Amino acid sequence: MKALKVTGNKLELTDISRPLANGEVVVRVLKSGICSTDIEIVRGYASFEGVIGHEFVGVVEEAPASPLLVGKRVVGEINAGCGHCGLCRAGDPRHCPNRTVLGIKGRDGAHAQFLKLPAANLFEVPAEISDSEAVFVEPLAAAIGIREQINFTDKTRTAIIGDGKLGLLCALSLANEPGHLILVGKHQEKMRIAEVRGIETVDASDRGKLESGFDVVVEASGSGSGFAAALDLVRPRGEIVLKSTFQGKPTWEAWRVVVDEIAIRGSRCGRFGPALEMLASKKIDVSPLVSDEFVLSKGVAAFSRAAEKGALKVLLNAAE
Amino acid sequence: MKALKVTGNKLELTDISRPLANGEVVVRVLKSGICSTDIEIVRGYASFEGVIGHEFVGVVEEAPASPLLVGKRVVGEINAGCGHCGLCRAGDPRHCPNRTVLGIKGRDGAHAQFLKLPAANLFEVPAEISDSEAVFVEPLAAAIGIREQINFTDKTRTAIIGDGKLGLLCALSLANEPGHLILVGKHQEKMRIAEVRGIETVDASDRGKLESGFDVVVEASGSGSGFAAALDLVRPRGEIVLKSTFQGKPTWEAWRVVVDEIAIRGSRCGRFGPALEMLASKKIDVSPLVSDEFVLSKGVAAFSRAAEKGALKVLLNAAE
Repeated sequence: MKALKVTGNKLELTDISRPLANGEVVVRVLKSGICSTDIEIVRGYASFEGVIGHEFVGVVEEAPASPLLVGKRVVGEINAGCGHCGLCRAGDPRHCPNRTVLGIKGRDGAHAQFLKLPAANLFEVPAEISDSEAVFVEPLAAAIGIREQINFTDKTRTAIIGDGKLGLLCALSLANEPGHLILVGKHQEKMRIAEVRGIETVDASDRGKLESGFDVVVEASGSGSGFAAALDLVRPRGEIVLKSTFQGKPTWEAWRVVVDEIAIRGSRCGRFGPALEMLASKKIDVSPLVSDEFVLSKGVAAFSRAAEKGALKVLLNAAE
Repeated sequence: MKALKVTGNKLELTDISRPLANGEVVVRVLKSGICSTDIEIVRGYASFEGVIGHEFVGVVEEAPASPLLVGKRVVGEINAGCGHCGLCRAGDPRHCPNRTVLGIKGRDGAHAQFLKLPAANLFEVPAEISDSEAVFVEPLAAAIGIREQINFTDKTRTAIIGDGKLGLLCALSLANEPGHLILVGKHQEKMRIAEVRGIETVDASDRGKLESGFDVVVEASGSGSGFAAALDLVRPRGEIVLKSTFQGKPTWEAWRVVVDEIAIRGSRCGRFGPALEMLASKKIDVSPLVSDEFVLSKGVAAFSRAAEKGALKVLLNAAE
């Protein structure tokens, strides 16, 4: 099968054997999405080597232990726990220290014609959700994970920093919550996507004009300057949600966190169920977030496109 | 009156006028305590100039608007809000953006024969508490502020990093909470104070031998390496409490906070009531934390002593 493989810091299209079920489920990939993490992995993040990609929709091809799954259109939770450790036994395989992660850690990923995952990781996709929309279930689940950590009320003032894919997904999904929301970005054409949905936007260069004292600030830019901006915007005893994995080791004014008694919450994954529900009920429209679509065999070019300034989600079509 | 004043980065004993009540309360200081923050202020932290010191016990000398207070032995909450802003009106003057802070911001402090504070800031000290113990009410309140942020249960595993004054106060006070507690330190003679109270200690150099996965890690060392250690020790979805104000801008591995979905809580002040109650009921013995006592007129020498390696609390006696 065709697959996009990372070896060293090199990405290439390869022809490798299809995965064998071996107690898991083999999925024929329909479409996959290129995430910023994928681009970071090619640059060396997480020291991963193998087939990359973790956002996908596909059709179950082989499921020896669960034959009723065959033919179902599915998306998949990307963390597979060991099943034995304390965290797995407590129902939290997402933080199992021995977990594999699809296309990120110890497990070949989704930018391929086939992948495999445990049956328990798969969620059937309702007919109301298109293939392209279904690719967004994983990042959307991550975005709306914020709702599990923050209790939004009519009085909650929230600022999201960053108008990339993650920042926009956070904005479009949190627009359904009570309270007031603004998006702080740097790209007019990206902020326009939020504005169309009725979300107030502010250019980062005008941030000084904003009244600070936000109850919640979501850092989705992944840059040290974004975190510094979050510290400026949040109120004493407010909450900063860190959504994006930062590169390197940024500096921070830790003393401000202490003096203002701020809470910082790291937030990575979310549950797939609420993301599927939000897409099926059309409470969010992710279509403006798709910048381009390539066939899988043009995957290397697709990565170049995804890494371009201004690009949002680039999809790969494996069913070419 | 005699007072220890910071001008530029210089500390000196001066003779200045007694403060006038002007709608507040004048307190004759009995004893004050030298805090690490005081030492940082002399080095330039917070750009404060004036009389320093914020830990004290004294006797009310003048209280024009509250004459019944005169003669009472008191300690005082150090933050004085503007009384008008949203935070003050919501009952949180500790975070008022226009607040003054005793000996730290816009208000002369406690290393003097007299100080003044609003009547609402004062708490009467029960007879069971000695003058030297009463000086610990402010830092003890800060230490036990952790209990307002964390719900300790029998299963909670807590590590405190740092065996200075703050780390020891956190350890001695949290020893009353359910769960298992360890103190990670670098100084045998300081850790001994915790051991006498039955608290398990580990030398920082042996930290690698500890089983990680702590539910709660309290960072009380104020160093970047202490925060890095906290990240190593805390479990996924665990909590790091930042107690000490860090100097400068340390680096941090922000990506680990995201991937492990850790919560970081800045924690500065606490309520005086529970600290007074803990001291009065003898649930904590702070006497081993006193390294030395000087008369106020030897205050500059007292600061040198307090800054020595291995020193814990140095008291000043203003009633010489």
